[in-house]
Parts: sequence; C-alpha cells; structure tokens
Amino acid sequence: MEAVLKETERIDDLQFKGLRIIQNEQKFCFGTDAVLLSHFVGLKKGDSVVDLGTGTGIIPILLAGRMTQICITGIEIQEDMVQMARRSLVLNGLSDRVSILHGDIRHCADILGKGKHHLVISNPPYMKAGSGLVNPKDDMAIARHEVLCTLGDILDVASKLLVQGGRFAMIHRPERLVDILAGMRQRKIEPKRIQLIHPSFGKAPNLVLVDGMLHGRPSLLWLPPLYVYNEAGEYTDALRRIYHLDAVLKDSPLEEDNTIE
Amino acid sequence: MEAVLKETERIDDLQFKGLRIIQNEQKFCFGTDAVLLSHFVGLKKGDSVVDLGTGTGIIPILLAGRMTQICITGIEIQEDMVQMARRSLVLNGLSDRVSILHGDIRHCADILGKGKHHLVISNPPYMKAGSGLVNPKDDMAIARHEVLCTLGDILDVASKLLVQGGRFAMIHRPERLVDILAGMRQRKIEPKRIQLIHPSFGKAPNLVLVDGMLHGRPSLLWLPPLYVYNEAGEYTDALRRIYHLDAVLKDSPLEEDNTIE
Repeated sequence: MEAVLKETERIDDLQFKGLRIIQNEQKFCFGTDAVLLSHFVGLKKGDSVVDLGTGTGIIPILLAGRMTQICITGIEIQEDMVQMARRSLVLNGLSDRVSILHGDIRHCADILGKGKHHLVISNPPYMKAGSGLVNPKDDMAIARHEVLCTLGDILDVASKLLVQGGRFAMIHRPERLVDILAGMRQRKIEPKRIQLIHPSFGKAPNLVLVDGMLHGRPSLLWLPPLYVYNEAGEYTDALRRIYHLDAVLKDSPLEEDNTIE
Repeated sequence: MEAVLKETERIDDLQFKGLRIIQNEQKFCFGTDAVLLSHFVGLKKGDSVVDLGTGTGIIPILLAGRMTQICITGIEIQEDMVQMARRSLVLNGLSDRVSILHGDIRHCADILGKGKHHLVISNPPYMKAGSGLVNPKDDMAIARHEVLCTLGDILDVASKLLVQGGRFAMIHRPERLVDILAGMRQRKIEPKRIQLIHPSFGKAPNLVLVDGMLHGRPSLLWLPPLYVYNEAGEYTDALRRIYHLDAVLKDSPLEEDNTIE
C-alpha cells in the first residue's frame, strides 16, 4: 500500500526490515542521533514505551522494527508532523501497535497515565532557548531549541510516566551532561548506562547516550565509545552495524532483537 | 644533597626537570593518575595551590616543576607519608615554595584560610567505604577507600578553600561521575572541563579528569579522549608527552609551563 505524499514530502528506506518513513524536505528530518538512540535502548516483551517529541515518528518505527511485542506511543506537538508520522505508520502496517498523540509533552502524563510505562525515550531539542541563532521557521526551532520544552520538562514528565524500575533513555550534547546527570538524579531517575559518540578517533565527543532507572541504585556503566568515522573518512564498522548497512541484515524479516551493545 | 632513606624506601627519577621522589615499596606509591592530573590543571603565576591527600607529595612536586612562581600546600593525614614527602621536598630543593601539612583535610580550611586559594586539586581514594575488599594494611586502605574522607568531604573543603572564580581539579573513576558532577554543582563548583582516559582505543574509559570553577557559569568543555596504549600495546604519543618520555624534554631546565592540552 502506498501512502499519499504531500508536496515536498518523500519516502525514505530505513534499510532495516523493509521499514520506510515519510519526511518533508522543508521540515526537521531525523538524523543519526535518532538511530543511535533507538539502537541503545533495551526492550522487553510487553513493554509500554513513550517517545517524547517523536517528530517524524522515526524512533517508534525503529523500535517497532526491533521488537513486535511492545506498545509504543509517540507524543508530538506539531500537528503537521503528527499527521505525517501517522501516515508513516500506515505505510509500514504499524498502526495497531504504535500510536502518535498530538499534544504537549508537559501534560502527557495526565493522558497516558502516571507510573504505567516501562521505557520513556527522547531525542529532545539540544539547544537552550535563547542560545544560538533560532531558526526563523518556527517548526525547525521547536525541534532544535528548548522553545516549547526544556530538558527539565522532559525529565519531569519521564519521572511521572515511569513505573518503579522503569527506564528513561536520551541522546543529547555532552556539553549538557551536568544538567542531564544532576537533573536525572534530582528526579530519582538514577543514571545507569552512558555512551559517548565521537566524530572520529581522538576527537572530543559530540553526542552522549544515557539511560537511567526510576529509583535505581547508583551504579553507572560506561559503554565503549562509538566512533562515527574511521581514519579513512568512512563509517566505522560499529556505526555500519547500527545503521544495518551490512547486506546480510538489510532484508531480513521482522524478528525479536533485544541487543544492547 | 642526598636524602636519608629508611628501609624499604627508594628514590625514583620523575624523568622531568631532574625531579625525584622518595617512595616506600610497602606503602601507597603514586600512579599514572597523579601524573595525568598534574598535567591537566592550568597554573598561573602567583597561584596558591592546595593538594588534598597529597600522599608521597607527587602532585606538589610535579606542579612545582611546571611553574616556579606558585605556592603549594599538600595536606596528608598519615604522619609517615608527611615525613617522607617533606624529605622529597628537601631532595628537590623545593621546601621554600612547597609545604606539607599534617592533618585531616576536613578541617584544613580553618588552618589554611577560607576563600584564599586559586587551585584545589585532589587524587582522592576512589572506592566507597565498605565497597570491595578493604586492604588490611590501614595506610593502603586510607589511600584507596573513602575511610577517612569521602568525595563529599573533598568537595566541601574545596568550596571553602577557593577564592571566587578559583578552580578545583580532580581525577576519579568514571563510575562516580554522577556523584562528581552533581556534587560539584551542589557546592557551586561548576564543572568546566572534562577528559576521559581510556586504556586503549575502543575500550570504555577507566579514569576521568574534571575541573570546575567556584561560582562559574554552566559550560562544560570536553577535551579529546586520552588513550594510554596504542594497538601495538605501547604507550601512545599523547601519554609519552605527558610522562615527558621524549628525550628532548627529559633534561630541560626548569621553565614556565602553563600548557593545557
């Protein structure tokens, strides 16, 4: 079944279990960060997952590709993105186990229920409101800057949504790590795993993956660093595996995948 | 002038500006961490520096070698270590600008003065009291475990000792990073620079260098990672430079060195 595309929209092949996504070239398109985050999180059968600020729906689609027996809700405030993400779900036949909620993440615990979800995930706006040049197109600014929700808002709502022992996972800029780790602990989401992403060997990290457990005991596990490019300027093997760029994976059928590397 | 050595003591050449240090083979000897920390910190002429838990005196000796016009006090609770460190100062002719105070770091702000010091530095015990196997020899346990002072104690006293805008620098285990960053911010020492040390390329980090500024504004700079061994199992060039293992540096005279890499 082919989805109806609006002008400036296109369908991209996710190179993973036949999944595809609709994106609008004039709006915020997903990046490496969403793929890295989707790969980073652990999934268990029966999990209820909430993606805060889901945008194109890329994270719910990739997670639904990793495991069939989970239920995912993506929240998005921009109505045109909500409509586009829903069309991507139809395109992939995922509408029965993924839903996109149109609304403000700051109030979504009232709708989705408090203390009921096993995993809350977010690829949030990285830049502080008022910092840097705010993109004049509002919808881009909303995706990149903390215009409509701050890091603190995301952590607040995550702590409300999670069950005891539930996990929160996020990708962000390493420059914000003090805000992230101190803010998680302050809300009783104890940081448990952390991984830094470096553009290449010997370069400072430019992304950080972190997860935490609601009311977990303090114990932080460092994963080996992930380098995006090797010395020849090509994607590293580790990144190629995450992107499923190896032919053997490319067309494999949907199957259970709970790998945490 | 040669120092008088006790039984089981030896003199080690620091391979840096002719400096040497007395160590006792049966007690805690300095490691790579002290050398990395001494290289990491920025120094300015006229600085008053305090080293919390100075042990053999390795950090004051290396800092005094980096810059002549600073005044350094090392605090150490174990009296035999204090005596040995003082003999190392005599051996190096540093007794006029480095002093070793015998006492408990938790009370040293009363003696050294509050809000008066430009740099507070510490290579503290890494392990929580009660965690792991505590070494039955008490003096080793004191150096390795938080028996006599915790991370919180160190941050408390650092915040008392520092002038406005003064720096605190520490090396520790990455597993404690939440405690470190949240604990620094809680005491108004805002983390400013961070560097991870990896045993080798592709391995998770096993040490973290961090510094912060009293009442600094939030802004965390990540330095490129430091790898200790290359793929051939040899020290990397970066580590060799820090250890001054290159012949050209080895016998150079004392000179100003304010490099932060």
